[in-house]
Amino acid sequence: MSDTSTRPVDYSRVFTQAIDRLHEEGRYRVFIDILRNKGMFPNARCFAGHNGPKPITVWCSNDYLSMGQHPKVIAAMEEALHDVGAGSGGTRNIGGNTHYHIDLEGELADLHGKEGALLFTSGYVSNEATLATLGKLLPGCVIFSDELNHASMIAGIRNSGCEKRIFRHNDLAHLEELLAAEDPNAPKLIAFESVYSMEGDIAPIGAICDLADKYNALTYLDEVHAVGMYGPRGGGISERDAVAHRITIIEGTLGKAFGVMGGYVAADQTIIDVIRSYAPGFIFTTSLSPVLVAGVLASVRHLKSSTAEREAQQASAAMLKGMMTDAGLPVMVGDTHIVPLMVGDPVKAKKISDILLAEYGVYVQPINYPTVPRGTERLRFTPGPTHDEGMMRDLTDALVEIWGRLELRKAA
Amino acid sequence: MSDTSTRPVDYSRVFTQAIDRLHEEGRYRVFIDILRNKGMFPNARCFAGHNGPKPITVWCSNDYLSMGQHPKVIAAMEEALHDVGAGSGGTRNIGGNTHYHIDLEGELADLHGKEGALLFTSGYVSNEATLATLGKLLPGCVIFSDELNHASMIAGIRNSGCEKRIFRHNDLAHLEELLAAEDPNAPKLIAFESVYSMEGDIAPIGAICDLADKYNALTYLDEVHAVGMYGPRGGGISERDAVAHRITIIEGTLGKAFGVMGGYVAADQTIIDVIRSYAPGFIFTTSLSPVLVAGVLASVRHLKSSTAEREAQQASAAMLKGMMTDAGLPVMVGDTHIVPLMVGDPVKAKKISDILLAEYGVYVQPINYPTVPRGTERLRFTPGPTHDEGMMRDLTDALVEIWGRLELRKAA
Ligand SMILES: Cc1ncc(COP(=O)(O)O)c(C=O)c1O
Ligand SMILES: Cc1ncc(COP(=O)(O)O)c(C=O)c1O
Repeated sequence: MSDTSTRPVDYSRVFTQAIDRLHEEGRYRVFIDILRNKGMFPNARCFAGHNGPKPITVWCSNDYLSMGQHPKVIAAMEEALHDVGAGSGGTRNIGGNTHYHIDLEGELADLHGKEGALLFTSGYVSNEATLATLGKLLPGCVIFSDELNHASMIAGIRNSGCEKRIFRHNDLAHLEELLAAEDPNAPKLIAFESVYSMEGDIAPIGAICDLADKYNALTYLDEVHAVGMYGPRGGGISERDAVAHRITIIEGTLGKAFGVMGGYVAADQTIIDVIRSYAPGFIFTTSLSPVLVAGVLASVRHLKSSTAEREAQQASAAMLKGMMTDAGLPVMVGDTHIVPLMVGDPVKAKKISDILLAEYGVYVQPINYPTVPRGTERLRFTPGPTHDEGMMRDLTDALVEIWGRLELRKAA
Repeated sequence: MSDTSTRPVDYSRVFTQAIDRLHEEGRYRVFIDILRNKGMFPNARCFAGHNGPKPITVWCSNDYLSMGQHPKVIAAMEEALHDVGAGSGGTRNIGGNTHYHIDLEGELADLHGKEGALLFTSGYVSNEATLATLGKLLPGCVIFSDELNHASMIAGIRNSGCEKRIFRHNDLAHLEELLAAEDPNAPKLIAFESVYSMEGDIAPIGAICDLADKYNALTYLDEVHAVGMYGPRGGGISERDAVAHRITIIEGTLGKAFGVMGGYVAADQTIIDVIRSYAPGFIFTTSLSPVLVAGVLASVRHLKSSTAEREAQQASAAMLKGMMTDAGLPVMVGDTHIVPLMVGDPVKAKKISDILLAEYGVYVQPINYPTVPRGTERLRFTPGPTHDEGMMRDLTDALVEIWGRLELRKAA
């Protein structure tokens, strides 16, 4: 803005304009104020804008398996709370390394068949810190990134300072074209996700590993929406497809299917040790509360042996997709647990969500830019083991009514 | 390395060399494996390397006021755990915005006399995300950063893409010199801390605000080591010095004096709204577990009205400093609750710490590069309200014995 050089900058005007732009595009976000009811998921209470809390059904939680209310998880957290207290009181290096952290890292390494694992305060931080640090440790490294990669991977790649090549979503031919174009001896890293959570589709992990072998590239796989959910022990798509041993670094979250909070990477011991020793986002922060870590330990252990939650969740997803498809709603195709309905406009997506909440007591958040590309705004449903057939019927009927009322496009 | 262009890169060699460098410098970090004993802080159990857990006294926790075991905090967390479950299940925008989050943001805004506040998963993320986003929203902004600023601020400033000027630690003349050298109409931001936790000294906040006024700069203050600890209601040094209203953005942690985990910024509503709307580190991550948020709410509310913990902590710090000074130990001067002992060598600092743990059951972590500059390695003690006079006497005696045994430099 040219006027900054002729008169003093008016900070509050700059900030107000940034907010105004969001309103103009119809993508200013209003957070809805809720509390879930433990023991009764997906039921919740919604505050603000009502006379007292209003009962709602949550359709967009990423606590995919309802592990956030599992008795074992709750009991483990309660026990830790009373045994060791609320927080860790320090960074991992300075006083904040508890026995729980060490046990959980062992459990996660085992889950992915890796030598080691490292905990972070979130999946976001695990992606950002690991990718940025790896890139810095490998001078001249080129990072190949799927175009739909999550913001946290994008941040890590940017902060690594490496050259970046973006390949078209799940497009092996394009990835190979980009790999072949680089110096064969330059360090390379391919960063991608297993389940793309806004699309509900899955990467061809084995075929990407073939390319990595051919071009001597490291592989970095975000399994955030797959850990706990896929594979016989919940090790993700890489476990289901028996390719985990071919991936250099597997990253996951503890806040979605595991139902608590936090993130991690699993890899061989040397890589874990360099990240542990060099990543500022790991080193310079209070470690995860032992209460959370205890809860995750119980959750991971449970889901290693119990497949009931995964099966019930897959059954729910299939049933809801079926009902919506039969009703002519524009469900996006995909073979995962995620059920996205394409709307294609931020204002309409918000309108549908507002009607669902106000008139039907249904909570599903509209997904808009920058979470998805502009023009692909959508509603994203995450049916879980606790959503029953009646709830799905009610939801589908409500959507059909609203689709008619707003004259929205139905499926082709 | 020139050989990367002539033969394929050997990744594991690169990583192994990175680890070897740490061993050579004597700063390879080994995390000690502990569990604190709720109800008996600063007592803890130490695992690994012993026959069963060994009882130790923790002298380096940043749970400065032992709020991590306060009955109100524990009770609030237990209640939330049973009411709403373990995790939030989503980002703040998508299902993870609980009533607890909103209440806590209100409480923190009030604590600092600001219009609003915004929660993050950690203090690290609050610094990184806020500074990076502010810088991006202010094209041409120049950021003035104290040379001892924390790694998380440094990361945020780097990721903002702004020009950065580093001023000598707490040096007003140098800061003014740098401010005066810039285009008067360019946006400017001064980023600094109140209590520098590795030094134990305090910034001249009011005088920095005077410079900010004179040069039309925004101010960003990290009060991570001061919130809960200073000011009549625990609002930090900016409350104690009655200058909070002059600071644009105050940042704090929920993981140190408040005893739990998480971070936040407090500022006027427009700034909170832009950070909320534009910062990837805020948007794209599962929100803090409601269990943690409930605990922090109890902690912040308690420390707003109770001064007993702050007074007891200050008394402990004064007593320990007095004893160490009388014993001729090289305590670093400072007027805060932190008691650093200068060693000046990473290998010796680790040696002292190892002896304390093995022979005296005392746990204090050596602080080495990159946490502090090379050559200023130290031990950093954080006496709290639960460290009694006998513990301090034992600690001082042990240090005097070790100082003699290792022939270390005493105070001048
Ligand atoms: C693909 C992907 N990676 C990483 C993350 C970040 O994980 P977390 O919520 O634990 O920060 C998310 C979502 O939050 C995600 O969707
Ligand atoms: C000055 C300072 N700022 C920020 C942080 C990060 O806070 P948190 O531990 O909540 O991530 C720390 C320490 O951890 C710190 O010392």
